[in-house]
Amino acid sequence: MFSQEVYIARRATLKSNLKKGVLLFPGNGESGMNCKDNWYPFRQDSTFLYYTGINIPDVYFVIDIENDEEILFGNNPTPEEIVWIGAVTPLEELAAKAGIKTVRPLKELASYVQKAQQREAVHYLPPYRPATVVQICQFLNIPVSEVEKKCSVPFIKAVVAQREIKEAIEVEQIHKAVNTTAAMHTYAMQNAVAGKTEKEIAGDLQAIAIGGGGNISFPIILTTNGQYLHNHATENKIKNGNLVLCDCGAETSMGYAGDMTRTFPSAARFTDLQKEVYNIVLYAHNSAIETLEPGVRFKDVHLLAASKLVEGLKGMGLMKGNTDEAVHAGAHTLFFQCGLGHMMGLDVHDMENLGEPYVGYTDSLEKSTVFGLKSLRLGKELQEGFVITVEPGIYFNPFLIDAWKAQNKYADFVNYAAVEKFKDFGGIRIEEDFLITKNGSKLLGNPLAKTVDDVEALKNAI
Amino acid sequence: MFSQEVYIARRATLKSNLKKGVLLFPGNGESGMNCKDNWYPFRQDSTFLYYTGINIPDVYFVIDIENDEEILFGNNPTPEEIVWIGAVTPLEELAAKAGIKTVRPLKELASYVQKAQQREAVHYLPPYRPATVVQICQFLNIPVSEVEKKCSVPFIKAVVAQREIKEAIEVEQIHKAVNTTAAMHTYAMQNAVAGKTEKEIAGDLQAIAIGGGGNISFPIILTTNGQYLHNHATENKIKNGNLVLCDCGAETSMGYAGDMTRTFPSAARFTDLQKEVYNIVLYAHNSAIETLEPGVRFKDVHLLAASKLVEGLKGMGLMKGNTDEAVHAGAHTLFFQCGLGHMMGLDVHDMENLGEPYVGYTDSLEKSTVFGLKSLRLGKELQEGFVITVEPGIYFNPFLIDAWKAQNKYADFVNYAAVEKFKDFGGIRIEEDFLITKNGSKLLGNPLAKTVDDVEALKNAI
Repeated sequence: MFSQEVYIARRATLKSNLKKGVLLFPGNGESGMNCKDNWYPFRQDSTFLYYTGINIPDVYFVIDIENDEEILFGNNPTPEEIVWIGAVTPLEELAAKAGIKTVRPLKELASYVQKAQQREAVHYLPPYRPATVVQICQFLNIPVSEVEKKCSVPFIKAVVAQREIKEAIEVEQIHKAVNTTAAMHTYAMQNAVAGKTEKEIAGDLQAIAIGGGGNISFPIILTTNGQYLHNHATENKIKNGNLVLCDCGAETSMGYAGDMTRTFPSAARFTDLQKEVYNIVLYAHNSAIETLEPGVRFKDVHLLAASKLVEGLKGMGLMKGNTDEAVHAGAHTLFFQCGLGHMMGLDVHDMENLGEPYVGYTDSLEKSTVFGLKSLRLGKELQEGFVITVEPGIYFNPFLIDAWKAQNKYADFVNYAAVEKFKDFGGIRIEEDFLITKNGSKLLGNPLAKTVDDVEALKNAI
Repeated sequence: MFSQEVYIARRATLKSNLKKGVLLFPGNGESGMNCKDNWYPFRQDSTFLYYTGINIPDVYFVIDIENDEEILFGNNPTPEEIVWIGAVTPLEELAAKAGIKTVRPLKELASYVQKAQQREAVHYLPPYRPATVVQICQFLNIPVSEVEKKCSVPFIKAVVAQREIKEAIEVEQIHKAVNTTAAMHTYAMQNAVAGKTEKEIAGDLQAIAIGGGGNISFPIILTTNGQYLHNHATENKIKNGNLVLCDCGAETSMGYAGDMTRTFPSAARFTDLQKEVYNIVLYAHNSAIETLEPGVRFKDVHLLAASKLVEGLKGMGLMKGNTDEAVHAGAHTLFFQCGLGHMMGLDVHDMENLGEPYVGYTDSLEKSTVFGLKSLRLGKELQEGFVITVEPGIYFNPFLIDAWKAQNKYADFVNYAAVEKFKDFGGIRIEEDFLITKNGSKLLGNPLAKTVDDVEALKNAI
């Protein structure tokens, strides 16, 4: 936990922004895999962590703004439970560390909330776990199907406005997470060689994340099929000559995430063709980074990166025509189907559960619905204190190539005859994490090999 | 997946046992950690796996016994989804591999079930994930609070009667899981030394499980506080002289579990005192194994192990009086608070979600409610084909020692003055997995070092 003052100050800001209402913060419970009591690793709700730092299951926190009340609801273990689990920090002590003065048993929560509901609005954020949906339905007497709809937009906006600006102590945590993430990548580059299965390497990467005190921040992508964006490690054996795309991240024991991608050859060196595509992605990556600063719309950075990719693809004879027109038309999305990056913090896609319209966009800048831009999670103007990822890529997706070739889609900009030969090339992505500073941006984590030469040198260092 | 015939035969047996009704098998969905789409590793429901072998999220299976209908409900990915995930096996092909002839879109499930409900009973097993509770509540129009109560006891009993008798192909899978589990233990014995954190070792163990093609079968216990039974790996550093208790297991890619425990010194050798307690547990362990055979009540094996522990503790001057009377009174539960073992199969605590009254006990043998026996998950007579764990232990639990000493509880059997000196000793457990055979039992997995000498030799082999 951070110091008491941190949590008190965060809550004070939230209360002064919202001015009235009762705020309900459901902590997460344990989550069963194949029965109730065989659990996945516990993960606290990030907003709960942000305002309380209390990282245990089955607690709720409530703020009654007008009555200036803050209550942690939960149960201390019984003496018999302590026999099974050993000594635990009492809730009163955890609450005190967070500057929360009142602790009450969990069984009083429902009646407390129902009483509060009679006099004023009870606000809650969009629940994402079915267990929380069921609890809210029971506490607030709302049908299950209404729970999501009735979440509080003012509460969402107030939380986003706070959490999106990272404090120095948070940046330190993220720096630490990114360094563990970089250690995972170093291991992957040096060990993901022909004969190993993707899962073997993914398991080793998770071990590094756990050894760092936390866990993985999202399911590891370690794949020789990097052209598919949502592809996880399988029992496939890596073959010589494969490109390996590794997109992974660690989170610290406090829950702060790292998220990086490297793409490298399973062999000792990139082939000339792999190198050529890699350098296009790297050029787009570096070009995007140079433009990062407060006031810049990330959607524009995304489009800039897209235009750099198009320039490179034109150089290779895979695209043609006017670059700006190609990007405007969306022709680059044959190769770059997704967004350039996203917010990062206590969640790898920070505050994803609060909704992209609030986290990545604004009332005046709505998210596009067209292919490509609809997958851009962050579009709005950058502010000092944002932490974001920058992750351009080129993905030769055979399904998309076949489908669009059949439609002759973007024929003015795409040389399908040339593209056809890349259907088994794979995909390349390069991703790093940045803090937006007063005048630009700062790389988070210590630098990790990124150029072709540096990646090859690191790969072959053992 | 096993061959088509396996699943067809399993379902035929189930149908002939139940004779009528509509059986609902909810497959599990993805489970979000800190938002809906940041997932824990997918784990299919074990009963779903048992009857279909289909290991993907978001499918339901229904059997209408009287109409001789078997339907897999689910959705194939859209062409756009295939762009993101790559080629997947179509549901029709998966269904065919399981011998299921009909596939229908998920959106038709609710109306199918509601129509069926009008003519006859729709049976379902106790749901353990809140998402499944919500789905059943919506499909069958039952209030959330009623869903658990209305599950089908005949369906539970029929499933238990089948799943508790392991087929040869299942035993092979468990053997494989146990061997991966043994590899985890070998690593732990050789690497859990002073200076490492518990979590570092636990992460490495998980990597071995994942590298085996599946994952961990339950949260890893890797602790220097083995006296607390529900204690997971922490960021504590292991110290020289500590006893390390490692209780972990892998599951295969098909979902079959292993579950073993070893306790070993962080130093090169056990101390004389550690050795003395270890040998008592080992004696109880071996004595219990010798009695395993069909027809023996596991509750009696548990009590036999308890009496062997008491004999040993008497030899050390920690207990006194008549052994049988001590066990009958429950005095051994100061040191052995839990049960001797449990069923194992597609779940580490096999079929735990179906309820211990059905899995571990019978209509005529109810589970005891007294301290100690109430934690014995398996009490009933063993049958050929059962797979069970045997895991006696001695746990010097300071909270329990203090509490019972203050009450002078079991004063006729416990030498509290002597026990007092063991409050910082820790705990020792030895656990292996056995198949009940026609005439006895068979150890699953290749033998792993278990005696003091063998554990020390394996520890120091690197």
